[in-house]
Amino acid sequence: MSVDNTVTAPKGFLASGVKCGIKKSGKHDLGLIVCPAGAKAAAVFTTNKIISAAVQISQKHAKSDTIYAVVVNSGNANACTGEKGIKTAVRMCAETAGYLVVDPHEVLVASTGIIGEHLPMGNVTAGIEDAIGQLSDSATDGMNFTKAIMTTDMKAKIACRRIEIQGKKVVIAGTTKGAGMIGPNMATTLCFITTDAAITKPLLAKALKAAIGDSLNKLTVDGHQSTNDTAIILASGLAGNKLITSQDSSYKKFAAALIDLCQDLAKQMALDAEGATRIFKVVITGAASKADAAKAARAVADYDLVKCAVNGGDPNWGRIICAVGSSGVKLNPQKVSCKLDDLAVFKNGAPTNFDRKKASKIVSQVSHTITVDLGVGKYSDFCVGCDLSKGYVTINADYHT
Amino acid sequence: MSVDNTVTAPKGFLASGVKCGIKKSGKHDLGLIVCPAGAKAAAVFTTNKIISAAVQISQKHAKSDTIYAVVVNSGNANACTGEKGIKTAVRMCAETAGYLVVDPHEVLVASTGIIGEHLPMGNVTAGIEDAIGQLSDSATDGMNFTKAIMTTDMKAKIACRRIEIQGKKVVIAGTTKGAGMIGPNMATTLCFITTDAAITKPLLAKALKAAIGDSLNKLTVDGHQSTNDTAIILASGLAGNKLITSQDSSYKKFAAALIDLCQDLAKQMALDAEGATRIFKVVITGAASKADAAKAARAVADYDLVKCAVNGGDPNWGRIICAVGSSGVKLNPQKVSCKLDDLAVFKNGAPTNFDRKKASKIVSQVSHTITVDLGVGKYSDFCVGCDLSKGYVTINADYHT
Repeated sequence: MSVDNTVTAPKGFLASGVKCGIKKSGKHDLGLIVCPAGAKAAAVFTTNKIISAAVQISQKHAKSDTIYAVVVNSGNANACTGEKGIKTAVRMCAETAGYLVVDPHEVLVASTGIIGEHLPMGNVTAGIEDAIGQLSDSATDGMNFTKAIMTTDMKAKIACRRIEIQGKKVVIAGTTKGAGMIGPNMATTLCFITTDAAITKPLLAKALKAAIGDSLNKLTVDGHQSTNDTAIILASGLAGNKLITSQDSSYKKFAAALIDLCQDLAKQMALDAEGATRIFKVVITGAASKADAAKAARAVADYDLVKCAVNGGDPNWGRIICAVGSSGVKLNPQKVSCKLDDLAVFKNGAPTNFDRKKASKIVSQVSHTITVDLGVGKYSDFCVGCDLSKGYVTINADYHT
Repeated sequence: MSVDNTVTAPKGFLASGVKCGIKKSGKHDLGLIVCPAGAKAAAVFTTNKIISAAVQISQKHAKSDTIYAVVVNSGNANACTGEKGIKTAVRMCAETAGYLVVDPHEVLVASTGIIGEHLPMGNVTAGIEDAIGQLSDSATDGMNFTKAIMTTDMKAKIACRRIEIQGKKVVIAGTTKGAGMIGPNMATTLCFITTDAAITKPLLAKALKAAIGDSLNKLTVDGHQSTNDTAIILASGLAGNKLITSQDSSYKKFAAALIDLCQDLAKQMALDAEGATRIFKVVITGAASKADAAKAARAVADYDLVKCAVNGGDPNWGRIICAVGSSGVKLNPQKVSCKLDDLAVFKNGAPTNFDRKKASKIVSQVSHTITVDLGVGKYSDFCVGCDLSKGYVTINADYHT
């Protein structure tokens, strides 16, 4: 049997994923993660002002000291569904809590899919009952959970890290969904992480925020934040390590592994982005502030003309400079420079006499790095984007009907 | 012979357009508008922080009391070209001025096309000489000028308005280019307007700014401001009307006709946008401020997922609400409402039981209106966008090479 790298890999977690008929395709659409002994939990949510019913409920429930389960559906976002939608989300928590004999506030809920339609509650109720019956700590059921959160994803996205803290084996496992409507702002799409590390709730929250900040939040497919973005981490505390209560070396080891895991998941998302054939990293240096660097990096990664050029394997660096110029950040036009990987194409405001064939080769890789120096300061930041292809249009022109 | 509706229609203007080899396709790529008697001029430019050499030079020259000519090239933006590029733009004005025996500061220059490559000065010099020789007040040469400013445009865009001011016939004619890299911020792409109205320079500037603000600036194809955006109006003053020196009824008549003309040009641009098959107007009402209304309208019009849905004729209004929510404007989630033309699809935060077939029919029209009420104030604004098609990707993936 192969090693379990799913959300059931850390000690103390059960999972399942079932088909309850929310998706017309008949694929997996309802999943559960359960921590029978109770977990510390932390979460980050979308910053969209219109938030789904699930996000509204989970924002409250995440404050509970102990979380026993996460119930997730795909195929329907339960967003823009008014009071009726709220009642549905509350009921998803209550029904799950009923089977586990815990308080509904100790269950988190997440939804993803089409916005503005009511969830078929009959299917959901049956799905929860089915999912409760399927719960196990096997890799198969861990993978079924991952299948149950997918929408337009082509590939399942999982990652696992095994570290040692004070001589004890600690496991962190994560899964994420998302291929479009992905913008770098707080949580991005749905992401569920389990760990058996023993760590306090505040430090768990701190580590999650930092990890998401440097991974999923640095990824942009189309610059869109959804109404449902949610990232949740559950810590069972069963690894046997001494409870992490300060930002000591144990915390740092845990936090570093968590960032590494989240960056792995982010990369998987970028490569599976709707229609994407290539990804690129935009690094901004010489910025007047960290915020400027982040803003300019995102502007380039979100620029449709840059994304189209990357799709065409075309080193059209003028569009990169145009994107930076229109982003509104402070820059010195006479000092701005740009590199494609290590090839300087624009230096101190003027084009270099670069090798065009070499440039085309760089841009035609599965992944390359665009570096732009703004020439006004010492700050830097980055963003990861993907190309814009005809496939993206095909996927998103007919998603609804 | 048909009526002249080109830039040579108003009294006092000559124009021409020639092929000088800047474009590899061999199409028209250099144009001239000349006002032998001298014109009052006003201009608005891109707000991109990286601006082309032509914009840098024209920003200075536009301050001159009298402008005798505008020289324009397409096929090369002369942007991000450093000091050498500036010298080229200066030389384009100087050479044109030399033939007309005027001061180089009395000539405006504009460029459009690929960013980051040097203009072939030999071709430009020969082109200017050729264009000077071709100058006439015929509709044919007026149209040749329009051809000479086109890049990826499929159709020539011209508009003309004939009004009467104090019993005198006044003509306003305009032409514009642009099909991509079009975002609503100050000037959009290249736009040249001629008129024989007698009007002071400050009032001409005021009327131009207002007209562009409610037309080209409300149009978005991909949210991108170019490095070269320029809108210029030249007034020969030969119509014979009494000089307009205050915001009286004559000014209002002129300004209204100018807005009407610019909106006509904007609509032509939207319908000819790269790959566009449909356009849509986004109207935001109930906003806390005019700025919020404009921001939300643009957010919807620029939202790739909305643009793809329109391409698919799909009434996926959830994406509209999602776009509004992520735009950062003030709103009341319990009061937000949305209509597709007159069909209410979302009301006070909840979906209505609307007729899906009717909704699909509305979104499948060549043009429809999306109205979103934010439920927090009395301000409104609008933005015009177009769908995102596979054609846009095709055009922009291979533009450079």
